[in-house]
Amino acid sequence: MKIEVIAIGSEILSGYTVNSNASYISMQLTKRGIETHYHTTLPDIEEKLVQAFNRAFERSDIIIATGGLGPTCDDLTRDVVAKLLDSPLVHRKEIEEMLVSRYGEKAVSLRDQATLPDKAIALENSLGTASGLYFYEKGRHLFLLPGVPSEMKEIFNRSLLPRIEHLVPQNERFLNESLHFTTIFESKVDPLLRELKKQFPKIKVGIYPFRGLISVQLSHPFEKGAEEKLKRCKELLLDEFGDFSYPSSSGAIEEAVKSLFIEKQLTLTTAESCSGGAIAARLTALPGASNFFSGGVVTYSNEMKKRLLDVSENTLLNHGAVSREVVVEMAEGALQLAGSDASIAISGIAGPTGGSSEKPVGTVWLAIAGKEIETKEWLLKCGLKSRQMIIDYSVNRALGELYHLFKTFP
Amino acid sequence: MKIEVIAIGSEILSGYTVNSNASYISMQLTKRGIETHYHTTLPDIEEKLVQAFNRAFERSDIIIATGGLGPTCDDLTRDVVAKLLDSPLVHRKEIEEMLVSRYGEKAVSLRDQATLPDKAIALENSLGTASGLYFYEKGRHLFLLPGVPSEMKEIFNRSLLPRIEHLVPQNERFLNESLHFTTIFESKVDPLLRELKKQFPKIKVGIYPFRGLISVQLSHPFEKGAEEKLKRCKELLLDEFGDFSYPSSSGAIEEAVKSLFIEKQLTLTTAESCSGGAIAARLTALPGASNFFSGGVVTYSNEMKKRLLDVSENTLLNHGAVSREVVVEMAEGALQLAGSDASIAISGIAGPTGGSSEKPVGTVWLAIAGKEIETKEWLLKCGLKSRQMIIDYSVNRALGELYHLFKTFP
Repeated sequence: MKIEVIAIGSEILSGYTVNSNASYISMQLTKRGIETHYHTTLPDIEEKLVQAFNRAFERSDIIIATGGLGPTCDDLTRDVVAKLLDSPLVHRKEIEEMLVSRYGEKAVSLRDQATLPDKAIALENSLGTASGLYFYEKGRHLFLLPGVPSEMKEIFNRSLLPRIEHLVPQNERFLNESLHFTTIFESKVDPLLRELKKQFPKIKVGIYPFRGLISVQLSHPFEKGAEEKLKRCKELLLDEFGDFSYPSSSGAIEEAVKSLFIEKQLTLTTAESCSGGAIAARLTALPGASNFFSGGVVTYSNEMKKRLLDVSENTLLNHGAVSREVVVEMAEGALQLAGSDASIAISGIAGPTGGSSEKPVGTVWLAIAGKEIETKEWLLKCGLKSRQMIIDYSVNRALGELYHLFKTFP
Repeated sequence: MKIEVIAIGSEILSGYTVNSNASYISMQLTKRGIETHYHTTLPDIEEKLVQAFNRAFERSDIIIATGGLGPTCDDLTRDVVAKLLDSPLVHRKEIEEMLVSRYGEKAVSLRDQATLPDKAIALENSLGTASGLYFYEKGRHLFLLPGVPSEMKEIFNRSLLPRIEHLVPQNERFLNESLHFTTIFESKVDPLLRELKKQFPKIKVGIYPFRGLISVQLSHPFEKGAEEKLKRCKELLLDEFGDFSYPSSSGAIEEAVKSLFIEKQLTLTTAESCSGGAIAARLTALPGASNFFSGGVVTYSNEMKKRLLDVSENTLLNHGAVSREVVVEMAEGALQLAGSDASIAISGIAGPTGGSSEKPVGTVWLAIAGKEIETKEWLLKCGLKSRQMIIDYSVNRALGELYHLFKTFP
């Protein structure tokens, strides 16, 4: 079963929109051991759509297209597919009534949005007006979904995934395992991965570094013994690098921190300078963050460091805001301020200005304090140049150190 | 001149990595009025690469491929292109010496990374070991770039953009204009855009809503009078919706807030509950944020709201943490705490739990206080369901209201 994901919209080709729909869909399929064979991107131009759908019908068994189902004049997908499959557009009273009941009599374009190719099975969209559409034609399964990510995801998860799981037989799938590591370099892991590839030639290995974190993805075609081989691989990797690993379904390190702190019933506070609230934002993006995170401060100026965290004027003068001494006082101040079990403090130079030969851009100090642990500090030198990369790297490293420090906490 | 962008890497097709390289490259080209015709995504499989490069040589004049230039065994791009263009790999001493001087004698794979197809012009990569490669063959311009985004961007901006700008003549380009708006609905703007399309049939209009913000992109083929037509369009849009517009080169609302606050020499503090530090993080992601932003607090728990912002126990008990009364006290408390000119406070229910029939998930209160303005508050009801969308929408709305409130500030 070959699967093709088609993203329709001139805004993708022009770079205004990142093609996140394709990666979402492929990720969901990958998690279920189902491979995506093609990603196709198309502008809102009829001729190009016709070409691409024809090619997809030749080379793919399951075609999932997103975008171009709205009511505006540049939305062409429905019309193009109707012509291509010789399936005239027919008004569906029951769909219009449902849309009217939801959006009211006055809502525009509802009649339009309820006019669908007669061969299509409509897939309900509970978040918008564009129904998803499913065709089985010429031995191919064609799904059309709206381009708005929330609507696409909703229909994909509810109506497509079960159908696709049913269509792709077990013996065409693969099994996979993910492992996540902090603070190690790709080049450290690479030799063992090459070893594993020799030992288990059918295992595919992907290694994906991202700003201080590394994900290793292992996969093996579905067959007898595959599960054991993957398990063995995972064990070998954990034997060597287990100290750096963290559990996470998404790969995000904050997920590991959250689970750990909730499990150990610990509370956390943040005191951020260079990361400017990014640690807190990452933690609170997770549902249920309030179970361990009471809040924090963003002390961007020296004045705020003194006012909120009681960092001493002298320390700031003698060592500068980016120093071991200041992050230690920040972490201890935060602990006092919030009365939490642990605190994490960070101060650095994210650039592009503010660096010096002694403290170049990318110099970041990190400290962790706790009611029952000694305060610990780290100097992170990431060697990165872009502001956003320095911030992301610092946040990942900070959460990584926090996780590893408290993992063994009694 | 047809341009094709090829992203190489199984991690894209499997969904582990979003294809942000293609959108970055296309955005840079779009800004210069240059169109991208194809986005192609490929796995690390030799046969697929050969097919795709052959097709690109048939249909495109300028081909930009990213990924697969590293030293690991799944990096195939260089070998495949060497074969395809009949251009044997040759060791280049000067490149190896440069790499050794940068990474040291012991660094692995440097000899490999300095072995390049003989027809290629090497494009220096100052952030990594994989040189960019440029070929002019069979009348086509082929560029190979590393897949690591920072390295790709650096080589693209320095070595590709000037070459491509030189290759694509003015009369094949288009002119464009961007406009950005807060707090209006796509459906409000749509009728005027249709009007404009009638009046100026050659103008292409794109309207891109994103979580509380809308960007309108106008473009016109390069020709006599095009500039005036775009200018006129822009004026007509601003006549009608100017009150909602904001200036921003990237489209990010925080950019407008930053420029405004620096221009008016005002300082800002944040007091965040449901957004959990995301407002502060967005502001401080901008270089130079310290010129107007001194810091803020993330008061996620009620305890922290009381401790840091002096929100009264009674207000919390009588009205709940998500209420007009609480955000007003938060904003006023933040102003006191930081001694800034303005403060913004936000408290809401980001979900998925915590909602009630009276205050459903997505209920968000926002308040802005200032030394010289009366405190103002808004109830945002975004009708969204996902936590991340509610947070993003709230942050965009908050920064939008802040911008508009202070735009007319004396």
